[in-house]
Amino acid sequence: MDEIKIDSQHAFVYPMPMTIIGALVEGRPNFMAAAWVSRVNFKPAMMMIALGAHHTNLGIEREGAFSINVPDVALLEKTDYCGIVSGKKVDKSKLFEVFTGSLAGAPLIKECPLAIACRLTQTVKLPFDTLYIGDVVEVFSEERCLTDGKPDVQKMNPFTLTMPDNRYWRVGELAGRAWSDGKKLKS
Amino acid sequence: MDEIKIDSQHAFVYPMPMTIIGALVEGRPNFMAAAWVSRVNFKPAMMMIALGAHHTNLGIEREGAFSINVPDVALLEKTDYCGIVSGKKVDKSKLFEVFTGSLAGAPLIKECPLAIACRLTQTVKLPFDTLYIGDVVEVFSEERCLTDGKPDVQKMNPFTLTMPDNRYWRVGELAGRAWSDGKKLKS
Repeated sequence: MDEIKIDSQHAFVYPMPMTIIGALVEGRPNFMAAAWVSRVNFKPAMMMIALGAHHTNLGIEREGAFSINVPDVALLEKTDYCGIVSGKKVDKSKLFEVFTGSLAGAPLIKECPLAIACRLTQTVKLPFDTLYIGDVVEVFSEERCLTDGKPDVQKMNPFTLTMPDNRYWRVGELAGRAWSDGKKLKS
Repeated sequence: MDEIKIDSQHAFVYPMPMTIIGALVEGRPNFMAAAWVSRVNFKPAMMMIALGAHHTNLGIEREGAFSINVPDVALLEKTDYCGIVSGKKVDKSKLFEVFTGSLAGAPLIKECPLAIACRLTQTVKLPFDTLYIGDVVEVFSEERCLTDGKPDVQKMNPFTLTMPDNRYWRVGELAGRAWSDGKKLKS
């Protein structure tokens, strides 16, 4: 097949994991949808989120904290809603059952199979977005989402996003084993 | 259900998009598997990758360039192999058919449905990993992977990774429409 050059704006990873970012903005829990999210450091565990100019950012910068919540498919509409309406105009604090761990500035979502509380450690301003990097302070899940104490994606039932077509996708079938299937090619 | 606190090392997003990072190391194309990869800026399009101490890093820092290639399921074993053996010991330059666009330091993989060439703009040293941020210079795909000129995940057939269980997953069924399904909740 022949390579063709396409619009640079179509540079995404496929698919992107959907999350809901939590922050305490002006004393009120606020939530936004985000898919530009990644683990960035092995030890200690650190995460990064890249956000445009959102209401959420005020809380992250003032409190020095944020949360990353992984919603399941049952929360798809609420997640999408969080990405459509701004906390500047709408109170989203009652949309979910909220709890906090030891980090008061990181509101966590009880309905989500995984909730990660982060303490902001670095802020990198990019031309349009801001990259927030944080230490993982605490991770919460539920017994029903774990296998041998570890998060099990099939029990969590999360969903992903593709852009620029703006579609959500379920996780599909098992395709292989990492740090394992490639051994066959070792000569 | 009741939240339980789990190991902070289980802080990941679920699932993570699998990519192959390309770099020109000591004049030779080298490739490694990576899933800590994300878009980080809207305009201009910018990407970030977070890497431990790898052979790849030498090339990225010297050439000021890297590539992000999205493999399809047919490349799963080769992708995994790239993550198992180091370019310090094994020549991986012949594993794929390699091409370059205008950025000579960013070797791209012809077999991948999407290949993104990035110019390094910022390096953020974290305690264990290094975060490389780059401007998207060019994006390549193939006609067979596009719908209306945009990458179509169903045609691309990529796969994802979950940690700490180290499993690869196909993309599943359509779950919804982004910036759309949440409108129902607008009161």
